[in-house]
Amino acid sequence: MEQIKILRERTGAGVVDVKKALDEAGDDESKAIDILRLKGIAKAAKKSDRDAKEGVIVSYVHSNGRVGVLLKLLCETDFVARNDEFQELGRDIAMHIAALAPKYVRPEEVTDEEISRERVFWMEEVAGKPANIVEKILTGKEKKFREEKALLTQPFVKDGEKTIGGLIAEKIQKIGENIQVGDFTRFEL
Amino acid sequence: MEQIKILRERTGAGVVDVKKALDEAGDDESKAIDILRLKGIAKAAKKSDRDAKEGVIVSYVHSNGRVGVLLKLLCETDFVARNDEFQELGRDIAMHIAALAPKYVRPEEVTDEEISRERVFWMEEVAGKPANIVEKILTGKEKKFREEKALLTQPFVKDGEKTIGGLIAEKIQKIGENIQVGDFTRFEL
Repeated sequence: MEQIKILRERTGAGVVDVKKALDEAGDDESKAIDILRLKGIAKAAKKSDRDAKEGVIVSYVHSNGRVGVLLKLLCETDFVARNDEFQELGRDIAMHIAALAPKYVRPEEVTDEEISRERVFWMEEVAGKPANIVEKILTGKEKKFREEKALLTQPFVKDGEKTIGGLIAEKIQKIGENIQVGDFTRFEL
Repeated sequence: MEQIKILRERTGAGVVDVKKALDEAGDDESKAIDILRLKGIAKAAKKSDRDAKEGVIVSYVHSNGRVGVLLKLLCETDFVARNDEFQELGRDIAMHIAALAPKYVRPEEVTDEEISRERVFWMEEVAGKPANIVEKILTGKEKKFREEKALLTQPFVKDGEKTIGGLIAEKIQKIGENIQVGDFTRFEL
């Protein structure tokens, strides 16, 4: 029962799902979490087609007043917008943005200009390597660069085991509504 | 003495300046304020050439969580950035932006596209009027439109007697440093 309780708290899944996952994982907790996460993300993917027009505007300003963030976090209903866990998610994401300064919401939003600029340096690093692996390295570097610049693919500052996208997927499963980052701004002095 | 005290509080000017202004205005308080403001704005204009690189990031979110503002307010020194009156100015301006939703900092920043779009409607309003006054009316309408869209030319929501630009000019005189609106963002649901 203790194991079920921990897994429910950790994943937000219901008792039945947790029991099934533990059976499937032969009572291995971390495997069971993986199974639940995979299911969670699958559920989240379906929910993310639904309209998210409600939500909350959250701000976070560092105590020194030199870094500040404004975030629009969206959900489907006014009811969830007022939910404590949803609002806590907003505060966590705003704080994360203040700390890690992403420039975009999604990795595909990184501009071609930015990639071209970096590519010059990557090309120098791969100079002299065989042509057949150069393109592979460059593709890898571009993927990593995009993931580092985008909020959803950054490791969550309070728990590096998950990305912000993964954190949101967990909350979508737990809360049961589509949740989306609408927009954010970060000012720094 | 009471008059001097009121004027000092109202304008932030020193005793000597207030006395001079009252003399000049024949003890008419509101005339004296105008004189001080003109001087204040003149002083502010000189100070506004100085670099403003310090400051504070201020946020304001309406209690319903549906409107939020992030503001970067600049001054010259870290000392003033931590000053209560400067920070209160930041909160006032952020709250004003939440309420009145300016799109730009300065009236000259309103885009030509936006003016052209409005001009279509203004042209309909002046249809049939003599050509010699049409241009005068259009110029007036454009000026008013720009002033309504820009933060610095909007009447301060807490005191319609002054604009945000006038409020900042007063604080520049009182605090003795250049103060500038660096940037702002407003999100609404």
